Amino acid sequence: MREIEQVLPKDIERRSMQIISEELASRGITLDKRNEAVIKRVIHTSADFDYAENLAFSDGAVDAGVAAMKAGVTIVTDTQMARAGINKTALGKLGGEALCFMSDEDVAKASKENGTTRAVACMDKASQIEGNLIVAIGNAPTALIHLADLINAGKISPKLVIGVPVGFVNVVVSKEIIMDCDVPYIVAKGRKGGSNVAAAICNAMLYEATGRTL
Amino acid sequence: MREIEQVLPKDIERRSMQIISEELASRGITLDKRNEAVIKRVIHTSADFDYAENLAFSDGAVDAGVAAMKAGVTIVTDTQMARAGINKTALGKLGGEALCFMSDEDVAKASKENGTTRAVACMDKASQIEGNLIVAIGNAPTALIHLADLINAGKISPKLVIGVPVGFVNVVVSKEIIMDCDVPYIVAKGRKGGSNVAAAICNAMLYEATGRTL
Repeated sequence: MREIEQVLPKDIERRSMQIISEELASRGITLDKRNEAVIKRVIHTSADFDYAENLAFSDGAVDAGVAAMKAGVTIVTDTQMARAGINKTALGKLGGEALCFMSDEDVAKASKENGTTRAVACMDKASQIEGNLIVAIGNAPTALIHLADLINAGKISPKLVIGVPVGFVNVVVSKEIIMDCDVPYIVAKGRKGGSNVAAAICNAMLYEATGRTL
Repeated sequence: MREIEQVLPKDIERRSMQIISEELASRGITLDKRNEAVIKRVIHTSADFDYAENLAFSDGAVDAGVAAMKAGVTIVTDTQMARAGINKTALGKLGGEALCFMSDEDVAKASKENGTTRAVACMDKASQIEGNLIVAIGNAPTALIHLADLINAGKISPKLVIGVPVGFVNVVVSKEIIMDCDVPYIVAKGRKGGSNVAAAICNAMLYEATGRTL
């Protein structure tokens, strides 16, 4: 008989976070206090302790994200999957919304005409949004590179960029490029990242913004 | 100036898979031919080569999954995120659909009444589905454990179980339990997995079933 730990549904997440804390301690890793909730939630979503070392935060990035969320923010993602993973109940409570343009017809058309990825066309569309904006990229380095161009050209001004595309072609460099920009960022250095990571980063800040406790 | 590799949008995925193949070779890893497409797509979605070692397949699991997809299948996921990540265009071409019951009112009600996670209640709901069924669990070990009970009781008979919950509480044991069942499975042993991994496994088989080439 396999041994199942008896944990009530409501306690599973708290127990998970405890285990993560213990394991970080046993690895001799001390997290920056201000970034801790984000890092732990990414480890929670991936079971990958590499993120204790990979995640890079510009000064005040978490404050910037939380403040934007509290003021009501549009979060633009580069995948439907990242959008699906964001806690829309928490976001809605704060008057925010999450959008992904990847399936939009005008985006498909623009990308075909311009010979870009659809993710690039999504960033152009995001630059038309008014009000507080957070851009969360979990998949497409092409989106992150184009976003950097738009920021440098003064065409878009996100309160925070979550730059965690995953993969093998231009992923590492795309993250270096966004970290060179004058914009608050949370970036997963190296190849790793993903839509789940992007959503987890958003949710960690949303939970702080809404005062959720475990 | 950062150096960006010039790759046409349509070639990014093929180039990524090439890099993954080269890196597997340089690590001295030879994948089982029948499971290779699934494993490589999981690495593609996570940039995590641990999956070259973690993924366990019952005999004929990929054949079972592809056959079910070709015949028209309902894929039930335990997160909206996994459902969002499954290629619904490919699935729809084959007459299939992807469902997630996590946001359903009857599921919320049943889980409250029974003191279970909502994911457990989703498995009960899945057991009512007629026709070919694939269950893809990327998040909740409680769902996987309950699914094993339902299978052992003869109440559900999936053509394939994708068992890749992620995390720290009962995740490892949930995978051991499902591998003890008399059901075709693809499982990520250990703590790792996720909604993105569940979706990637589905998509690898969907691409084979629809004859998609890179």
